[in-house]
Amino acid sequence: MSIDFPSWADMAPTLVAVAAGRAPADTVVRGGRWVNVHTREVLNNMDIAIAGGRFAYCGPDASHCTGPDTQIIEAEGRYMIPGLCDAHMHIESGMLIPAEFARAVIPHGTTSMFTDPHEIANVLGLDGVRMMHDEALMQPVNIFTQMPSCAPSAPGLETTGQEISPDDVAEAMAWPGIIGLGEMMNFPGVINGDPKMLAEIAATQRAGKTVGGHYASPDLGPAFHAYVAGGPADDHEGTCEADAIARTRQGMRAMMRLGSAWYDVETQITAITEKGLDPRGFILCTDDCHSGTLVEDGHMNRVVRHAIDCGCDPLIALQMATINTATHFGLEREIGSIAPGRRADMILTSDLKTLPIEQVIARGKTVAKDGKCLVDCPHYAWPDTARQTVHLGHALTETDFDIPAPEGANHVTARVIGVVENQAPTKALTADLKVSESRVEMDGAQDICQIALVERHRATGGVVNGFVSGFGYNGRMAMASTVAHDSHHMIVVGTDREMMAAAANRLAEVGGGITIWKDGAELALVKLPIAGLMSDAPAAEVAADAGAMMAAMAACGCTLNNAYMQHSLLALVVIPELRISDLGLVDVTRFELTDLMVDNA
Amino acid sequence: MSIDFPSWADMAPTLVAVAAGRAPADTVVRGGRWVNVHTREVLNNMDIAIAGGRFAYCGPDASHCTGPDTQIIEAEGRYMIPGLCDAHMHIESGMLIPAEFARAVIPHGTTSMFTDPHEIANVLGLDGVRMMHDEALMQPVNIFTQMPSCAPSAPGLETTGQEISPDDVAEAMAWPGIIGLGEMMNFPGVINGDPKMLAEIAATQRAGKTVGGHYASPDLGPAFHAYVAGGPADDHEGTCEADAIARTRQGMRAMMRLGSAWYDVETQITAITEKGLDPRGFILCTDDCHSGTLVEDGHMNRVVRHAIDCGCDPLIALQMATINTATHFGLEREIGSIAPGRRADMILTSDLKTLPIEQVIARGKTVAKDGKCLVDCPHYAWPDTARQTVHLGHALTETDFDIPAPEGANHVTARVIGVVENQAPTKALTADLKVSESRVEMDGAQDICQIALVERHRATGGVVNGFVSGFGYNGRMAMASTVAHDSHHMIVVGTDREMMAAAANRLAEVGGGITIWKDGAELALVKLPIAGLMSDAPAAEVAADAGAMMAAMAACGCTLNNAYMQHSLLALVVIPELRISDLGLVDVTRFELTDLMVDNA
Repeated sequence: MSIDFPSWADMAPTLVAVAAGRAPADTVVRGGRWVNVHTREVLNNMDIAIAGGRFAYCGPDASHCTGPDTQIIEAEGRYMIPGLCDAHMHIESGMLIPAEFARAVIPHGTTSMFTDPHEIANVLGLDGVRMMHDEALMQPVNIFTQMPSCAPSAPGLETTGQEISPDDVAEAMAWPGIIGLGEMMNFPGVINGDPKMLAEIAATQRAGKTVGGHYASPDLGPAFHAYVAGGPADDHEGTCEADAIARTRQGMRAMMRLGSAWYDVETQITAITEKGLDPRGFILCTDDCHSGTLVEDGHMNRVVRHAIDCGCDPLIALQMATINTATHFGLEREIGSIAPGRRADMILTSDLKTLPIEQVIARGKTVAKDGKCLVDCPHYAWPDTARQTVHLGHALTETDFDIPAPEGANHVTARVIGVVENQAPTKALTADLKVSESRVEMDGAQDICQIALVERHRATGGVVNGFVSGFGYNGRMAMASTVAHDSHHMIVVGTDREMMAAAANRLAEVGGGITIWKDGAELALVKLPIAGLMSDAPAAEVAADAGAMMAAMAACGCTLNNAYMQHSLLALVVIPELRISDLGLVDVTRFELTDLMVDNA
Repeated sequence: MSIDFPSWADMAPTLVAVAAGRAPADTVVRGGRWVNVHTREVLNNMDIAIAGGRFAYCGPDASHCTGPDTQIIEAEGRYMIPGLCDAHMHIESGMLIPAEFARAVIPHGTTSMFTDPHEIANVLGLDGVRMMHDEALMQPVNIFTQMPSCAPSAPGLETTGQEISPDDVAEAMAWPGIIGLGEMMNFPGVINGDPKMLAEIAATQRAGKTVGGHYASPDLGPAFHAYVAGGPADDHEGTCEADAIARTRQGMRAMMRLGSAWYDVETQITAITEKGLDPRGFILCTDDCHSGTLVEDGHMNRVVRHAIDCGCDPLIALQMATINTATHFGLEREIGSIAPGRRADMILTSDLKTLPIEQVIARGKTVAKDGKCLVDCPHYAWPDTARQTVHLGHALTETDFDIPAPEGANHVTARVIGVVENQAPTKALTADLKVSESRVEMDGAQDICQIALVERHRATGGVVNGFVSGFGYNGRMAMASTVAHDSHHMIVVGTDREMMAAAANRLAEVGGGITIWKDGAELALVKLPIAGLMSDAPAAEVAADAGAMMAAMAACGCTLNNAYMQHSLLALVVIPELRISDLGLVDVTRFELTDLMVDNA
């Protein structure tokens, strides 16, 4: 268990004895090219001796550290690079629990992750964060937890399952696996001096830990500077070269992300490759990876390769995924390089450009070889409170999805959430809709179907109904998901109220996930029993289920790119223009609730 | 008082308000060239706004941060560089208390120092360290204390006034100004796994602080690697390029020093300028500066200039004296750059190569201008225990310096400490000496005079006598000093036993320092009443006294370069070959006591 992993201080007597030649190493990796991220050099024909899970000796000829029981790994001239670090990411984005996420990324060479369990915080609060944190510490690789900072993301516009307070933050700072504060998304709050946000930052700074940033605005004027002055130490929301340059000049680390749907490396890395800035201020991360990406494309190895493809020197790209990250989090003497005393996390690869991950060693043990994970990733005993989080109050029927018309009206002008392909922001549309039997009706001809936000945390029975356009659904269908950023109630979208009720009830039955119904039958189901957000199945299984789910969306007529993501973001009431929450329809240009009917406004 | 200096967390509401333009800055430095050590760039025509002693806004046009009461400093196109950091140094080397040392270096642009009060630790133990620490925290600039690790330096070969234990180290780690462990000089101890040394390192690591190194050996084989595996995070004892490269490759910071008598920058900086290593692993420091150097030549500005003269890019040289140091000590978000939230420590200079220090701002206040210190540097109320540390037991007479001959001998072969010009190591010489009245006599013809180690911590009355050669003294003279590294008893060297007694008694009378006597009169006196090591007078006064003292040495016939330093190092029983301690003559090639008379060996 990593929580019991001995410290450098614990191991120093052994490490000294091995390096001096008085005691044998557990393992010696022999005859490799040492990629030294401290000096940015490759040193040929070097040996690495490991003892007690830490590097004991790194240099030429470790025969003095080698005893009869020392395991020898022949590097055969391959490169020895430090295990890769993902500097900011959300495990929940893979719909996997930490153990299964680790199992998926270990063969890709990721040995350290800095994770912000923001999603579960919205569902289960501090208890949920603790569960993620505890499972993280059980893994054979390093998963450091960033304490989520913003639940709810938009106070007053939504009700989360639980809230995070400055006291929660202060309490979590004492947990063994907490490395800092998760991304401070409430950037308007910081800029405006919101005492609650500043108190969370202060609690983190006073604990000597790192404050994660999230400044999602193109404005690099005084608002940006005010955010920086508030204390966040990094930011991964930059999307262009000017963003990256501005952040590093202000003494922040610019985290450049390549996630399943984020492509912010190529547009920012020119700050290094063309403008020649000191690369020490730049870091690579994923932010969000779907399980399909992990299964098919890779993880941090994919990001490093991509950075190299963008013209970055491979050694600088590796620094940005190893030592730069470690330094940022104050872990430079613990991870991020192959050097004495550090956790023995390393990769053998025969090529520094294509970066094949041939053997992965974590804490001195071979944890993956040729793409296969060779190590156990233990599961936390997730309690019932985490497995039973879909509380509807009562079984829903089609009448729960009725949208009553104003008395006497035979048509109305209604607000409609307009989904825009490949963009997170929605459009605030309006449409003329017919009234039938005192209900406002959908209109397939205008591609307008219904959306409902079904309260699922407190069994209030609350259902907020509205209209959405842009999915292209046809026939009698519905899709429901308990992944509904950031408060993670349940979002149901459908062309038919009966199907909507069936889909919602189905998720209550299985404890959460995603389901698609058509003509009275379930087309696809992704079970996410942990908090309604994560499966405890392996990544390949979840990726297959997610693939079937996306195929089912297409079968219902949806041809949008990233259609599922669009669905799950419809309640994200911090991104313009129009969203839905458990409190009603939200105008996210003015950050206030608005009415469904334009006539009533 | 700096101990009350508010943290970033304390000041964040103000800093955010200033950056956003809702509140006025205290000070705006307008129209300068911002030397950005994060990105390694110079940015023209920039403004810096300061509030509450910290940077609030760094960017173009700070007019939105400027109110009617904001003090405006016109940079007029000059460079704005971060205040300079001295990464490792001993304040006692200047014979000044921290306040006066600060006052001397502030006009040179030094705003942060990492000091190891190793000398006072030998005299007054943990109490003495605390006094230095407390005075350090009273200063208007940042003086971080490294807890001394090795008192005594050579256990079993000397008796210090006080000892430092692992418990002392653990206790000190909780003090507000302690930044880490002072140089771990007992490198043979670390290499051999000495539990006491490893316990001190472990206590520091467990407190999350930085372990200072001191590996004073050219051996870069397994012994060096074992030392690294023990935990020291930096080393300033490297003297050649290979030393610097080896240290940085191992993940240590290579500290390159230019002190009053150390010249280790030029020989190591080629690792960057020629070998092209990533400069982030390199740091500049002084280690030891005499007050004369501070008064006449400068401090860290002298080191940075020298690095530039050695061919280093000025921006890299500045990084090595600012952000690299801050990062190493985990203070990157507190000092070391001009960036929001950091302590507002900066310098205005019109040239990046010659580096004239025109204006120095520390914590937002102008502390020096055109070489003049404009700020108060408060003195600690040094107690009597610190001011009365020369305890001889009884007034000495010439008979205390008698060296009895073996019975019946009329001449002897004696061991003689041979001083070598410009070198710290001595030679273990032998000489044939005459006996008169049962005493072994000195021999001016062979340039052999007497040396005595006078116990001064516990009033034991102990006097250890021996012979020394190489000073060139003639006539009836003696010189005594209570600066006697590392245990700081009293070293008396003289050609005449009566003069030796007079010199020793004089130091007891004035509470310590250095005195030179000739023909019955005192030629020069440097009073060092604090622990017998430091004056509480200003640097210029101490430098003048020290100059007079060196002139007096010359007047007694000594023409050695750095003659005083040679005198004060004669009891440094960790450097070969022959030294003297309160326990006797020490053979420092074999680390054992030896006899004065060869015949008796």
